[in-house]
Amino acid sequence: MPSRPVPSGRILPARADRRGFLKRTAALAGGIAVAPAARGQGDPAILTLPPHSKGLGQPVAARGYGLPSEHEKNLQRRESPGLTRVSQSSVAFTPLQGTFGIITPSGLHFERHHQGWWDIDPRQHRLMLMGMVRAPKVYTMDDLMRLPSVSRIHFIECGANTGMEWGNVAVPSVQYTHGMLSCCEFTGVPLSTLLDDCGADLKKGRYVLAEGADGSGLTRTIAMERALDDAIVAWGMNGEMLRPENGYPLRLVVPGVQGVSWVKWLRRLEVGDQPWYTREEVLHYVDLMPDGRHRQFTSIQECKSVITSPSGGQTLLGRGHYNVTGLAWSGRGRIKRVDVSFDGGRNWRTARIESPVLPKALTRFNIGWTWDGGPAILQSRAIDDTGYVQPKIAQLRAVRGTRSIYHNNAIQSWQVAANGEVSNVQVG
Amino acid sequence: MPSRPVPSGRILPARADRRGFLKRTAALAGGIAVAPAARGQGDPAILTLPPHSKGLGQPVAARGYGLPSEHEKNLQRRESPGLTRVSQSSVAFTPLQGTFGIITPSGLHFERHHQGWWDIDPRQHRLMLMGMVRAPKVYTMDDLMRLPSVSRIHFIECGANTGMEWGNVAVPSVQYTHGMLSCCEFTGVPLSTLLDDCGADLKKGRYVLAEGADGSGLTRTIAMERALDDAIVAWGMNGEMLRPENGYPLRLVVPGVQGVSWVKWLRRLEVGDQPWYTREEVLHYVDLMPDGRHRQFTSIQECKSVITSPSGGQTLLGRGHYNVTGLAWSGRGRIKRVDVSFDGGRNWRTARIESPVLPKALTRFNIGWTWDGGPAILQSRAIDDTGYVQPKIAQLRAVRGTRSIYHNNAIQSWQVAANGEVSNVQVG
Repeated sequence: MPSRPVPSGRILPARADRRGFLKRTAALAGGIAVAPAARGQGDPAILTLPPHSKGLGQPVAARGYGLPSEHEKNLQRRESPGLTRVSQSSVAFTPLQGTFGIITPSGLHFERHHQGWWDIDPRQHRLMLMGMVRAPKVYTMDDLMRLPSVSRIHFIECGANTGMEWGNVAVPSVQYTHGMLSCCEFTGVPLSTLLDDCGADLKKGRYVLAEGADGSGLTRTIAMERALDDAIVAWGMNGEMLRPENGYPLRLVVPGVQGVSWVKWLRRLEVGDQPWYTREEVLHYVDLMPDGRHRQFTSIQECKSVITSPSGGQTLLGRGHYNVTGLAWSGRGRIKRVDVSFDGGRNWRTARIESPVLPKALTRFNIGWTWDGGPAILQSRAIDDTGYVQPKIAQLRAVRGTRSIYHNNAIQSWQVAANGEVSNVQVG
Repeated sequence: MPSRPVPSGRILPARADRRGFLKRTAALAGGIAVAPAARGQGDPAILTLPPHSKGLGQPVAARGYGLPSEHEKNLQRRESPGLTRVSQSSVAFTPLQGTFGIITPSGLHFERHHQGWWDIDPRQHRLMLMGMVRAPKVYTMDDLMRLPSVSRIHFIECGANTGMEWGNVAVPSVQYTHGMLSCCEFTGVPLSTLLDDCGADLKKGRYVLAEGADGSGLTRTIAMERALDDAIVAWGMNGEMLRPENGYPLRLVVPGVQGVSWVKWLRRLEVGDQPWYTREEVLHYVDLMPDGRHRQFTSIQECKSVITSPSGGQTLLGRGHYNVTGLAWSGRGRIKRVDVSFDGGRNWRTARIESPVLPKALTRFNIGWTWDGGPAILQSRAIDDTGYVQPKIAQLRAVRGTRSIYHNNAIQSWQVAANGEVSNVQVG
């Protein structure tokens, strides 16, 4: 469970900033006439020109590789201490409360490792393709990058995302409830192209094993129909090479499927006629059902959504209009509609969906809301193009009990108190 | 003109790396049997497990904000020294030869400043909207972020991109020929919403002036129909706040229009009934025509494309298959088709276009090519959904002469020599 202080939202400043806001608003009320002649009557900020409006600034290429503003230092991916015994096998969560649109900045992409990350030399890295193939092959990065490549925008979500909520633990912020979620543009060679290049036996070969080059030697079985569909052996992420934390120089991208199958530092692919029953698909990433049995070989991340702002840990600035915004996604395809409720699910309004709406990608929604100063419970409910409707937590629990860790795609509820504070609550 | 060494392409290593590649290839030829029993017979790299496959790596959140691999240090935006008197009013170019897909990493976004960049405190920043409006207003960042927001992917291109080529100067690499070009997902409030909020006089008010808060006080006139169409007052770029070099905390986004109108550090918008004839639209960013007159108030960036790899300064690894890739874009709408020629424009094949194909956004194209070891000239030609076809440089010169700096959207030619070296050539 998170124990670090939750960073306040940028959009909706916490208490410390709120007083400042009210003060500025009052100043503006007395100086709303802002035609040139009236300049300086109201807000002290426009009395005199600031240094940046007079002096010579920084030169171009001062930073050959740019970074965020110094004023944005608080927006970081953060570990949830105590989640695992060592930080090399832990999670760092994406700060969804402060991100916009559908692209996750690569520097804020969530992390989940099994034995820590490495910055592997791409000149030394190899990918071996073997098993039920006509000709096993070893590829260098140069070899791979000469093959036909594709670029596609997809979300990746850890199967354990929102896992704490199964057992009634209301984690305080959207960073820790839903932050094992990111969305990037990936570039690489289709896995189907590599299988074809090696002459994979598509009659007998029904599965592909993917293996990572890190110390955990992570392995996962991928069904052949998925391997042949839209899986990518990727080197590019958001226009540049993968980041070390995300598998540089090579990772498997399996759109719609839980993150553990997106094997990082990919070194080996093997074609076989049955699943491998690896540790990470038989002992872990399984769901303990009410009757004591496990759901194994789970794969697709079902349709889900969450309001990212306002969200837990943020404080509303005062009554009036807000842009309520969030993310929706489905491992089955495209998002068709997102509804938002401000009264805990009694009434729903359809949100505005931003384009592009892409299959197996995050979709941004926005909806206007006028806060009257009273308590409210905000929820979002996504529907994908298969017609599947995101369930309530009670509906999920009725089928799957309360002992799961994985695959919670229930509707999330944020409670707004009369003082503007937003917190995580569970509503049937 | 660029005088720094041109960075070699990552995809197609330069000479120094090429020998290593050939050596590795030879090793593989002797050790192609890579079934487990045969491991280690061929490539020394698979003889023993590397440290990263045995040890404990770095923990999660080792970097709260992540960075590229240490092996990618060479991929930077770079200034072209001598272009301007001081680097505060110069250009840093995006390394297009090493980027993938359509999203430009924010750290590699091109830079063009008029008096250097600043990291402005968003709590102090204000936007004033005034002129022919019912009620002038001053907005804080908090005020703006409560308004209805949109997220859209758009390219930005400096009007001077590819400017050196007008006068037969064959700049050596795609970074310096076309690198004043980037594409990001922008988030902000539609300019039309702000104009409505202040009660802009849409009968008499036909133009909007945009003014930056930097020392240059950059100003540009935007036609009202464009302001009401798809212009955005943006704070978000690629999922996070704008970078300081790109106008943090607020910039104007004018899709399809040349970069100078995307005013950074935006502090003022004014509604008026005629253009302001500012320095940057009357003296600069004008095209000197053959008859001695100037084209003024230029705006839309016309349909254009370029092959980014292989491109100038790269060296092919040897005969055989290559994935030839590039970018196409149009300020008028969507890209409809991209054709590629390998013989200097005699024969053309249609390239494969990656989805999504978005209006006024970069579009990635790929096409397979088998190099036979002989000389070749590679070209791409884009067509947008208005039916406009990207012209040859001779066609442009016939109308606009050779004394322009701006708005060169001609077909680019890369020559491949028999030794694999790629260089910039001009083909009528």
